[in-house]
Amino acid sequence: LFGKNGICCHALETEKAFGTAEKAIEFSKGNKFQLDDILDAQQFDRDILTAIFQVAHDMEGIEKNSPGSQILKGYLMATLFYEPSTRTRLSFESAMKRLGGEVLTTENAREFSSAAKGETLEDTIRTIEGYSDIIVIRHFESGAARRAASTAGIPVINAGDGPGQHPSQALLDVYTIGREIGQLDGIKVGLVGDLANGRTVRSLAYLLSKYKNVKLYFVSPDVVRMKDDIKDYLTSKGVEWEETADLMEVASECDVVYQTRIQKERFGERIDLYEQARGKYIVDKNVLAVMQKHAVVMHPLPRLDEITVDVDSDPRAAYFRQAKNGLYIRMALLKLLLVGW
Amino acid sequence: LFGKNGICCHALETEKAFGTAEKAIEFSKGNKFQLDDILDAQQFDRDILTAIFQVAHDMEGIEKNSPGSQILKGYLMATLFYEPSTRTRLSFESAMKRLGGEVLTTENAREFSSAAKGETLEDTIRTIEGYSDIIVIRHFESGAARRAASTAGIPVINAGDGPGQHPSQALLDVYTIGREIGQLDGIKVGLVGDLANGRTVRSLAYLLSKYKNVKLYFVSPDVVRMKDDIKDYLTSKGVEWEETADLMEVASECDVVYQTRIQKERFGERIDLYEQARGKYIVDKNVLAVMQKHAVVMHPLPRLDEITVDVDSDPRAAYFRQAKNGLYIRMALLKLLLVGW
Amino acid sequence: LFGKNGICCHALETEKAFGTAEKAIEFSKGNKFQLDDILDAQQFDRDILTAIFQVAHDMEGIEKNSPGSQILKGYLMATLFYEPSTRTRLSFESAMKRLGGEVLTTENAREFSSAAKGETLEDTIRTIEGYSDIIVIRHFESGAARRAASTAGIPVINAGDGPGQHPSQALLDVYTIGREIGQLDGIKVGLVGDLANGRTVRSLAYLLSKYKNVKLYFVSPDVVRMKDDIKDYLTSKGVEWEETADLMEVASECDVVYQTRIQKERFGERIDLYEQARGKYIVDKNVLAVMQKHAVVMHPLPRLDEITVDVDSDPRAAYFRQAKNGLYIRMALLKLLLVGW
Repeated sequence: LFGKNGICCHALETEKAFGTAEKAIEFSKGNKFQLDDILDAQQFDRDILTAIFQVAHDMEGIEKNSPGSQILKGYLMATLFYEPSTRTRLSFESAMKRLGGEVLTTENAREFSSAAKGETLEDTIRTIEGYSDIIVIRHFESGAARRAASTAGIPVINAGDGPGQHPSQALLDVYTIGREIGQLDGIKVGLVGDLANGRTVRSLAYLLSKYKNVKLYFVSPDVVRMKDDIKDYLTSKGVEWEETADLMEVASECDVVYQTRIQKERFGERIDLYEQARGKYIVDKNVLAVMQKHAVVMHPLPRLDEITVDVDSDPRAAYFRQAKNGLYIRMALLKLLLVGW
Repeated sequence: LFGKNGICCHALETEKAFGTAEKAIEFSKGNKFQLDDILDAQQFDRDILTAIFQVAHDMEGIEKNSPGSQILKGYLMATLFYEPSTRTRLSFESAMKRLGGEVLTTENAREFSSAAKGETLEDTIRTIEGYSDIIVIRHFESGAARRAASTAGIPVINAGDGPGQHPSQALLDVYTIGREIGQLDGIKVGLVGDLANGRTVRSLAYLLSKYKNVKLYFVSPDVVRMKDDIKDYLTSKGVEWEETADLMEVASECDVVYQTRIQKERFGERIDLYEQARGKYIVDKNVLAVMQKHAVVMHPLPRLDEITVDVDSDPRAAYFRQAKNGLYIRMALLKLLLVGW
Repeated sequence: LFGKNGICCHALETEKAFGTAEKAIEFSKGNKFQLDDILDAQQFDRDILTAIFQVAHDMEGIEKNSPGSQILKGYLMATLFYEPSTRTRLSFESAMKRLGGEVLTTENAREFSSAAKGETLEDTIRTIEGYSDIIVIRHFESGAARRAASTAGIPVINAGDGPGQHPSQALLDVYTIGREIGQLDGIKVGLVGDLANGRTVRSLAYLLSKYKNVKLYFVSPDVVRMKDDIKDYLTSKGVEWEETADLMEVASECDVVYQTRIQKERFGERIDLYEQARGKYIVDKNVLAVMQKHAVVMHPLPRLDEITVDVDSDPRAAYFRQAKNGLYIRMALLKLLLVGW
């Protein structure tokens, strides 16, 4: 099985975790990547997920054993961030540099389109594409990444556009489940916390629907329950799901407890509602005590106190390994978009 | 002739576009560059322009065919920006990295000389020159780059100092005209928009005076007309110029229509005057319709609506190619200052 | 003797300046560095200082003669700055790049732990250590670097934590004295200016106590006198010290006049006290006139007018060489922590 201990896994095990891509020939070494840009979770079918995860897994080996890899030598990535997101930015920049590529950074891309100057996103993209080989964009408006991609002649990766998509986060979540649990078919996943506003859990539910016999549990305060669009989608795909208030029951059943932060900024002036929602479902030692030995706790980070710090030392606390997997997924995406399979 | 289509040109064609440097021996490979710093447009005579443009043209080939060039390997550029200018900064940083060099970035250089700490520019430069091999400075005060250069023992490039100079922009404009039109002697150029405040058009007019039989047209709202110092200079050099309100007539005559943005910030509270000036001369499909087949539209960017977006798809819209040429000019300047011809 | 003129010194001279490490075998090439992290000046005994200074001296040769060194190729440093300090950041980043390493930069690390998100420093460190090989942290809270180090599985360098420590500054100060004066035993050092608040002079006094027959003079306005803890420590170690108001007398006696900036921000609303303190001890041509030929003026920078600019051209003005030595010390620390002796 896959190690919590970071020991490298054999191809056979990878196959067990992620399955085998049926259209394997399309994904064989030297072929062009099928996607021009990474914009949303809807772009991925099960086969391409499997193939991407294999590449991400190879990246673990490269990061550990090949310091100074030159796979992306001579390539230049521009991180065009219209709002700061240091975590995401550093993850992409680390990925690029671990593969020998170079980076142009801007965290104040709004300056390009300041009120005074008023340049369109499209004009900015046409300038930046002249200076780089790939653009990683973070924007405050939903749809901005798609607009950028339709303008640019080079690949664009959406690193989060407002309430919209953040596809590399969705991929790293699924990859982490496969790495931690050893399989994606037949798993039970409890999604906990803010299920209304978190794009993370929504994308994760969407991607898990591609696997067989998955069961999802939704555990959230009433004010931030999972929305009907996702529930209807899961139902239409034959995915079993259940809404419940019993975190302990879910924790004892599930392979994965995926906790999320209640987002204070969504509550406006209703601080009372926020405080009430925030304290309701905490993952602590008591929750750990009922979880199965092979199960794990995940979290997209940052966390406040929805997971207590005494959980950190338990081997089932997977959230920092999950953050690290973001590096491997981003290394894989950059490699695939720039040089192919 | 030079391609709008990005096809590489033969040496002969380059020669036709930019002429031949008379003092070619001084500019031959391995020789030291004649300039210690790049501070203003006045530093360049026709011969050195010709030679620099040849190097810029070589850089197009390097960028396209030699990813991972090591020409500037081991060199470190510090971008010391006292005001943000993401476009200019990324262009210099891309240039350095395309040649294998490395970059130290600061966009908040004002912090060095904050009111609380009060360090002089000279002290800052003496510190930074210990950490790097070349300094690219952007400052809010005219003359700051010259002060930096007189302190530093390493090369300094002025990336814009307040209302003063921005010489790499001036060079890329002339280079673009040569690349697009195929020649610099005998051309007709219409300068449109804010001719009073734009350092771009002032430097361009100055540099074009070095070529033969150039004719300039000035088309601008009354409040932002070209100032007398440039007009007098052109007259003294025997350059023909004409002030006119008829954009259509100019467009039909010229090889280059160089449009600029009306700078709102110069109008203070007189928003009415700004709105009036701004709407007066727009380059749109109607203007394109009267332009000659070989002619081009240029703009230093960013643009608002002084060029309508439906112009972008016309092959004569040269402004994004012009932005890209900024990369080649900056690659050339960095190479010349650090390793010579 | 060591050159003010930058001429490289022989091993013999280095030995004279810094002494010989007694436990030389522990410090011989290929061995692991004794420290896991660089957190405060108290970590260093005389022997390891000697050995580190030898490496810093080697770095001078590498910087001058080996552009494109690959000593740290494949290593990635994260600069995690919770408050901006462009000077310190660029110095570390230059050090990393001069040795062929790569850098992830963030100057707005506070965003990680913003009030809204509330992530702990420990969680941030656990994420960042997944993206990099070494962390350089600057923080507004005393003790933050130590907390980071106890969390991280990779080396941490404290680049200043609030009123606490800034050990690389302390090392570069001692290294500069050795390089400039040619010895550390038997020297007389005048510490001038703000001795109460400057962590620089406090750490310097502490480290100099490790050398023999050192005499220290404290020259400061009454409101910012050296605190008793350091005086008591020096006395306990048998280091001679003297408090005096006579800068001229001290200047004529000392090998080093170490001037510091009076920190306005410490005076709150008592601007009158600040102005009075600030003007009291100025190093100018008159002070230079009484200094010995071999003596030097040092300053941690930035300076206001506590050293007049006409002092800069005197060969005894060592403060810009001192800033440059910060590069060599940081190159040495990065090399030692990442690849050992």
